[in-house]
Amino acid sequence: MKVLISGFEPFGKMSINPTEKLLLEAERFSLENVEIETILLPVQYDKCAEELIKKMAEAQPDVVIACGLAAGRTAITPERIGINIKDTGSGDPYPDNRGNTPMDEVIDEQSPDGLFSTLPNRLIEKKLKDLQIPAAISNSAGTFICNNTLYAVLNYIRKHNLAISAGFIHFPASTEMSARNPSLPSLPQEVMTQALKVIIETCAHHHYHCFGS
Amino acid sequence: MKVLISGFEPFGKMSINPTEKLLLEAERFSLENVEIETILLPVQYDKCAEELIKKMAEAQPDVVIACGLAAGRTAITPERIGINIKDTGSGDPYPDNRGNTPMDEVIDEQSPDGLFSTLPNRLIEKKLKDLQIPAAISNSAGTFICNNTLYAVLNYIRKHNLAISAGFIHFPASTEMSARNPSLPSLPQEVMTQALKVIIETCAHHHYHCFGS
Amino acid sequence: MKVLISGFEPFGKMSINPTEKLLLEAERFSLENVEIETILLPVQYDKCAEELIKKMAEAQPDVVIACGLAAGRTAITPERIGINIKDTGSGDPYPDNRGNTPMDEVIDEQSPDGLFSTLPNRLIEKKLKDLQIPAAISNSAGTFICNNTLYAVLNYIRKHNLAISAGFIHFPASTEMSARNPSLPSLPQEVMTQALKVIIETCAHHHYHCFGS
Amino acid sequence: MKVLISGFEPFGKMSINPTEKLLLEAERFSLENVEIETILLPVQYDKCAEELIKKMAEAQPDVVIACGLAAGRTAITPERIGINIKDTGSGDPYPDNRGNTPMDEVIDEQSPDGLFSTLPNRLIEKKLKDLQIPAAISNSAGTFICNNTLYAVLNYIRKHNLAISAGFIHFPASTEMSARNPSLPSLPQEVMTQALKVIIETCAHHHYHCFGS
Repeated sequence: MKVLISGFEPFGKMSINPTEKLLLEAERFSLENVEIETILLPVQYDKCAEELIKKMAEAQPDVVIACGLAAGRTAITPERIGINIKDTGSGDPYPDNRGNTPMDEVIDEQSPDGLFSTLPNRLIEKKLKDLQIPAAISNSAGTFICNNTLYAVLNYIRKHNLAISAGFIHFPASTEMSARNPSLPSLPQEVMTQALKVIIETCAHHHYHCFGS
Repeated sequence: MKVLISGFEPFGKMSINPTEKLLLEAERFSLENVEIETILLPVQYDKCAEELIKKMAEAQPDVVIACGLAAGRTAITPERIGINIKDTGSGDPYPDNRGNTPMDEVIDEQSPDGLFSTLPNRLIEKKLKDLQIPAAISNSAGTFICNNTLYAVLNYIRKHNLAISAGFIHFPASTEMSARNPSLPSLPQEVMTQALKVIIETCAHHHYHCFGS
Repeated sequence: MKVLISGFEPFGKMSINPTEKLLLEAERFSLENVEIETILLPVQYDKCAEELIKKMAEAQPDVVIACGLAAGRTAITPERIGINIKDTGSGDPYPDNRGNTPMDEVIDEQSPDGLFSTLPNRLIEKKLKDLQIPAAISNSAGTFICNNTLYAVLNYIRKHNLAISAGFIHFPASTEMSARNPSLPSLPQEVMTQALKVIIETCAHHHYHCFGS
Repeated sequence: MKVLISGFEPFGKMSINPTEKLLLEAERFSLENVEIETILLPVQYDKCAEELIKKMAEAQPDVVIACGLAAGRTAITPERIGINIKDTGSGDPYPDNRGNTPMDEVIDEQSPDGLFSTLPNRLIEKKLKDLQIPAAISNSAGTFICNNTLYAVLNYIRKHNLAISAGFIHFPASTEMSARNPSLPSLPQEVMTQALKVIIETCAHHHYHCFGS
């Protein structure tokens, strides 16, 4: 069983992205029958997904868990759905790291409006809560890079009819980030690392039950 | 050109639903070349959509604008997408007016995960802002009755390949509601009425340009 | 009976301050036995209060109602207390319109730590709610210009033992401001104008009952 | 040097109060030249302060650090001021554990409107941030039990002219609480314990420099 974990480089005004650190931790996890690979993705529309899909083609994972930062959230939030849109909004544009600010652009013209994550989100939520870690299913991954990545990966799996479980987990700001900006809700990096380990185990176990291999 | 507007009865602990009042106001609008019909929907999973779809079959509208309350929001928010799920969550269940609390239930097994609204959301946002009315596109209509209604109507139109524009507009609490619960952001009922009139005009105009009729 | 109303010029990144507009409206109020004077104050530490106190010395009002903007609040909030501090915080400094960023500075070394508003705050809250206008007593006017003004005026009245009722009312962003920044809760300028009229009447009536004149 | 730490029993609908657990941890701290005593206070108006003041008379502490829960906050927040009021508000009353709901009641008729904490709040904030723990000075301890305790203790010290440093620290919900209610911002109990240790050291050191002993 191979699990591919992705995270993102820092973006916007933030010099830290806790999902970058999560990748370093994930590489050290020792999980029975689970091989872990990781990839750090650029905060750029389309390119984020292209790099993850290229890595999927090489690494041939059974499970893909894309991870991203949702500063302002209080809990670890598995995303329910990716939607076929790139949009930085009509007000204050929020550019990606190359300065792009798409508005209401479709990711893929010929593809469905939305695609559900195939990770066991409700089970992830339960396992995390059992460990006293705040978790909740989210119904929107937004319309920025995170959603772009989620949608494109699910669409790639759909088009090629692959037996891969895939989805997206949003993590809150780390407590280190909140120390600089105390109005940000946070979880410590160690708690998020502990959570990621449980998420990987839960997804690997679930994938095995659904697909074998 | 016929436009069908739906609203909801009160739900939860709230004795007021501003969208119920909006229907009464909408019936009095005088708009050139636009005939308005309205329907008040029950806050019940599935039944909400069944009643709206039945009304659509009778009234044969060109445009359907479903309206709902999103207490806590600060602006009028056209919804981008309806998703194929009914879910009152794993924590504090939030029952409908019959006491139902579905969890991760699909609305229609054979249908897509998500369906985009076909109302001109970006144009609605612009027209409202031009009138100094706060507006923003929302990327999640939640997983309760409002999303249920939006998804089911879009799916009905899709299945029957109808030339109907349809979507969902969430309205914030009315200022009257905020007077009882001052931590609630609000807009006055009159402002929401003014907004609905503009939304109808914008949708009718857009439908005419896209479909004629 | 003379009532002095103060408001503020715009500050920070905002080009509008609804309390500046409130002054123009207040000058047009026609209230029996109540003469209204107004003053627009600069968003500068200390100078804000000096100008208001100078105006008090000239105009000899019975009641002083200082008004300010609290962008982010949902209701009209009479302030309970002014505190003897000027502080723009230890993180992101939030300078006044001259660029000053005091930190933990006392307003007046020889004076009390806090002084209660002497406006009839609870009655104001009730009168506004009766008119379906959201209102709530606030327990902190912050540590910026608004609190500086409130504290210094109350302290001036205390030192000189004057028979003047005085306090501070925070107003939310106007709906016009929220149209530019739709995540801001708001009230329409007209609702705030209506509220200010009721606040003046309530304060004048209360002052008359307490002090005569 | 003796430091007295107080915490509270659970209140409202919450079965946990992280400050109760902090007391158990504090009793195990090993700090050079600092003796620690603790007291668990009831969530009852006036009685909260009476019990703490009685304990102060017995234990003769040099420093009093009262601790309370502020569910909803994201950071550890030293309070700047206690105010002379007990108030559960005019809307939804929020009773203490005996069912009392005072409204705009003065704590002590003959005493000042507000009294500043004498703990080194800014230094506490700095020391916590240096350890990557979110911290910020708060300008309102509310008008419930926490403020009641803070004000009454500061007023007792003032009336008797005692050489005691005293103040109040609000802690956010624990991560355990957030696991049950994932929309609550939180910090892990261990982080709050680590913070309390630093707060005690900082206050003891500061007291020694100001007063000797």
